[in-house]
Amino acid sequence: MVMEEEVMVNRKVVLKHHLPPDRMPKESDMELVATDTVRLRVPSGSMAVLVKNLYLSCDPYMRSRMTKHDEPSYVPDFVPGTPISSHGVGKVLDSGHPDFKVGDYVWGMTGWEEYSLITSTEHLIKINHTDVPLSYYIGILGFYEICSPKKGEHVFISAASGAVGQLVGQFAKLMGCYVVGSAGSDEKVNLLKNKLGFHEAFNYKKEPDLNKALKRCFPEGIDIYFENVGGAMLDAVLANMRLNGRIAVCGMISQYNLGKHDGVHNLLALIAKCIRMQGFLVSNYYKCYREFEEKVVQYMKEGKIVYIEDIAEGLENAPSALTGLFAGRNVGKQLIVVARE
Amino acid sequence: MVMEEEVMVNRKVVLKHHLPPDRMPKESDMELVATDTVRLRVPSGSMAVLVKNLYLSCDPYMRSRMTKHDEPSYVPDFVPGTPISSHGVGKVLDSGHPDFKVGDYVWGMTGWEEYSLITSTEHLIKINHTDVPLSYYIGILGFYEICSPKKGEHVFISAASGAVGQLVGQFAKLMGCYVVGSAGSDEKVNLLKNKLGFHEAFNYKKEPDLNKALKRCFPEGIDIYFENVGGAMLDAVLANMRLNGRIAVCGMISQYNLGKHDGVHNLLALIAKCIRMQGFLVSNYYKCYREFEEKVVQYMKEGKIVYIEDIAEGLENAPSALTGLFAGRNVGKQLIVVARE
Repeated sequence: MVMEEEVMVNRKVVLKHHLPPDRMPKESDMELVATDTVRLRVPSGSMAVLVKNLYLSCDPYMRSRMTKHDEPSYVPDFVPGTPISSHGVGKVLDSGHPDFKVGDYVWGMTGWEEYSLITSTEHLIKINHTDVPLSYYIGILGFYEICSPKKGEHVFISAASGAVGQLVGQFAKLMGCYVVGSAGSDEKVNLLKNKLGFHEAFNYKKEPDLNKALKRCFPEGIDIYFENVGGAMLDAVLANMRLNGRIAVCGMISQYNLGKHDGVHNLLALIAKCIRMQGFLVSNYYKCYREFEEKVVQYMKEGKIVYIEDIAEGLENAPSALTGLFAGRNVGKQLIVVARE
Repeated sequence: MVMEEEVMVNRKVVLKHHLPPDRMPKESDMELVATDTVRLRVPSGSMAVLVKNLYLSCDPYMRSRMTKHDEPSYVPDFVPGTPISSHGVGKVLDSGHPDFKVGDYVWGMTGWEEYSLITSTEHLIKINHTDVPLSYYIGILGFYEICSPKKGEHVFISAASGAVGQLVGQFAKLMGCYVVGSAGSDEKVNLLKNKLGFHEAFNYKKEPDLNKALKRCFPEGIDIYFENVGGAMLDAVLANMRLNGRIAVCGMISQYNLGKHDGVHNLLALIAKCIRMQGFLVSNYYKCYREFEEKVVQYMKEGKIVYIEDIAEGLENAPSALTGLFAGRNVGKQLIVVARE
């Protein structure tokens, strides 16, 4: 049977040029291109999957990909003239891969465009539960593995209303920890205290002295720090850690637009307080995804966990959503809706 | 039976005053006092141990104790007018403690004086093997626990000819690792390569670019860093670490005489390379001492491990031995002989 070939216009957001490392990304560094077309079929005999993109994720680590690196990083640099890529949710329109069928919803690395042909399917995940906010939950596994939280421990989370921070805080609280978060606006602090159930929260922009803010919230010190921001906050935290403290380094958003990163001065605390500090990537935990998903779905259904998303409508608003991350404009996890279905 | 009371002159090295945090210690910050006397008996009914001090240890961490801290550190500040204290070896002259008998050799925290009454005996250890260099070996346990070295891994050690570095290097080599050390003189580099069996070594004072020196020695990157110096070396190492690298933070001697510690700029590498960085204190491992001692004694007897000591003769030379640590004058572990027996 010969099928009619369906060719569609495929709008996409491309990177216009590599950015220098020392400035914020601007919307004008990206461009919406509406002239390309796409054939809505996978090449004959290939194992690829063709998806219609529904939701795209905006994450701070993407900033690094906008700059050209001399040495390869853990994620490849974006290529000017081609679409930005990020994690996203898509609906399968055609598939040469036995694990993915037409009509499936999938989550994985995709393009900032209406339709993407995904050829690297190793990390593509079929979504079993469309009612939970995808695999941001697996960032939590870094928290568990690196921090080994115990009931009664004192946990501090920076960028606490963000994509990962809000979840870490809620999980830590479910474990019986005392949980404090920092964020960059009173609105976010209010969410932390009144919607996400943090015991305490502060607006770091209104604190003239981060060290004092932490001493106020943690008179007995911090056992666990979930690090999302770096720089001066990390220094203040190091000065307030307790013996045998643990620091999970998930991100350092304050540093992503600096040519030379801020110096961190208090690392001697690592010795005196026997602190463990460990970086991680979400990809470390893909193997645990399915197991963990069930636990999270249960929590969601029981109403023990909520998730705050900030949804930008339309591919044309994607550049502004991405640049907004670094100005702290997003409240909760930043997503872009390309299509509802 | 009434025993005759033996009272002896007890020469001691006292700290004259607290030091500001931002300068090197000088010999004139300490003073030899030769006018005090001591009764060579423990007080009746006490659990104390009276020792004749034989060897005293000089260690970089002692610098911190010479400065007054507002908040208590993991070791108490020295008290001006009283003897410096450090680990040392003594011979028991009298004991109210059932675990220690007259004539025993013991290792533990003692005073920089000829005779010390040790009242805190929790960490005092009876020496079973007088032919091995005491418990510096247990610093190695931090290396094993934090770094989990595996055959074939690439190990870098700074201050590599020092008290702990020389041992870590030899143990790493016995495990089948590729081992490189840095030190501050050609003499030390020569020892590392020709006496301690390091695969490679360099004099950091002769390297205009530490990053390049590390790239030359580790073209494929570093799996394990045993950190003794901090500052610029740590930054260069972070830039040369491999995925899943481990950093055991034992010391940061380059920072001990600075009012404000150098900023470390490359901590983002912790995330991209999933690096674990952990500080530790030797006291974490006291519980494992006996078990480990046997292993080390065996290695020593088989000639698999050598140990280089730099021995200053006489209590009067103790201040110069201590200040020499920070100028890198010592070659190997710095000790002071107070008495041979």
